[in-house]
Amino acid sequence: MNIVRYGRGDVVAYGILDGDTVYEASGDPYTGGPTRGTAVGPLSDVTLHAPVQPSKIIAIGLNYQDHIDEDAFDFERPENPIVFLKPPSSLVGHGASIVLPAGTEKVDSEAELGVVIGRRCRNVKGSDYQDVILGLTNSNDVSARDYQFKDGQWARAKGFDTFSPVGPAIVTETDPTNRAITCRLNGEVRQQSNTDMLIFDVPTLIEFVSRVMTLEPGDIIMTGTPAGPPTMSPGDVVEIEIDGLGELRNTAVAE
Amino acid sequence: MNIVRYGRGDVVAYGILDGDTVYEASGDPYTGGPTRGTAVGPLSDVTLHAPVQPSKIIAIGLNYQDHIDEDAFDFERPENPIVFLKPPSSLVGHGASIVLPAGTEKVDSEAELGVVIGRRCRNVKGSDYQDVILGLTNSNDVSARDYQFKDGQWARAKGFDTFSPVGPAIVTETDPTNRAITCRLNGEVRQQSNTDMLIFDVPTLIEFVSRVMTLEPGDIIMTGTPAGPPTMSPGDVVEIEIDGLGELRNTAVAE
Repeated sequence: MNIVRYGRGDVVAYGILDGDTVYEASGDPYTGGPTRGTAVGPLSDVTLHAPVQPSKIIAIGLNYQDHIDEDAFDFERPENPIVFLKPPSSLVGHGASIVLPAGTEKVDSEAELGVVIGRRCRNVKGSDYQDVILGLTNSNDVSARDYQFKDGQWARAKGFDTFSPVGPAIVTETDPTNRAITCRLNGEVRQQSNTDMLIFDVPTLIEFVSRVMTLEPGDIIMTGTPAGPPTMSPGDVVEIEIDGLGELRNTAVAE
Repeated sequence: MNIVRYGRGDVVAYGILDGDTVYEASGDPYTGGPTRGTAVGPLSDVTLHAPVQPSKIIAIGLNYQDHIDEDAFDFERPENPIVFLKPPSSLVGHGASIVLPAGTEKVDSEAELGVVIGRRCRNVKGSDYQDVILGLTNSNDVSARDYQFKDGQWARAKGFDTFSPVGPAIVTETDPTNRAITCRLNGEVRQQSNTDMLIFDVPTLIEFVSRVMTLEPGDIIMTGTPAGPPTMSPGDVVEIEIDGLGELRNTAVAE
């Protein structure tokens, strides 16, 4: 099932996406729902919001060796997952604009597997990871590199409004392994890897993060990006596609 | 007015604290309320929760020169505010335990002025800062130093459950200047400064942060800590007291 949050007029609601058609949904995805209702219409008639409404966005840095090895960075392979947080105010959905802030020189797009938490949990054993996942989604950890390296802490560089595109849907599958992950800029492949290349895999991440903080339904873990995150200019179209999760497309615009 | 969130039995609600008495409150603090109702009882009869329910906890690093200069750290004075985020799952109220996680060697208590946002805003001019503040509160940016320096990113070290004590109340005053800020460990003064010593003052912080991210009602900005944050051992009692904001007291316990 593909769970979306769609807007039409002033209403924003959960829906179910099947092919190009959005259906109404009754019930909450985190409490047994949703179940499919009547058709709302084609995807082109609605606005897609981020499918998650998290209490926190947890992101993982330096989780693909080829990204750590890139010449432009001065990163070392970490001994444990490097956790940072992005503000929920940075979320947007499929089709939304990514606003390149005035004053930033280099804003990159980072394709990442997003893992959506399905129930409140803490101290989850890695082997039980599938019990706490509602589903998977594409995500983009947009990053202003100049601020990232100037500040040291990454919250500003990665925290601007529109810097966390997620979607188009939560796909209710719980196996994150062996999924090709691709980022295209204006149709050209710029990132190409596979979730099996994660240094710290999803079970490890869920055990590690839930050891620190209570996870809530709707929380999302962005699992890190492979080599090649492209720099965006106004007008650029960025597409993130992970096997089985559809395509997340956003357009960069100048502030 | 002192706005609290109190629990009694299974109910958690906003209340108003006057002296040692908690009163019921009708209305939301962010939409014109609350107004005082009947007395609930003495503070000792209720559990205080954190008075805020933020969509994000924004924290500022390295914002007092005497903390930057401490020998134990290798910090430099920043050119701009250093922003990081703490997860809402780390919040606790006055009187709650701070759980020292197994595996950490050095967990410090950091007294900080907390600024509570009153309305949704973005791109606020520093001179208009009082328009967007609901009130002020004591906060404690609890930090596991070993993880902080190992990870580089601070979200894990400062993000454990119970690592963000806040309260006891939101005090609906909007002038953050010239307030003495004190942290005591087992009654002994360990941090002693004044909010006028902030490198980046509250108007500057609100302009800077709201330039990046939309602020929401209930969001809190922890403004940084002065020199001397004490390391806690199980059983230690830590008190944070900022002029006019009451006293935030918590007890450290082993996991």
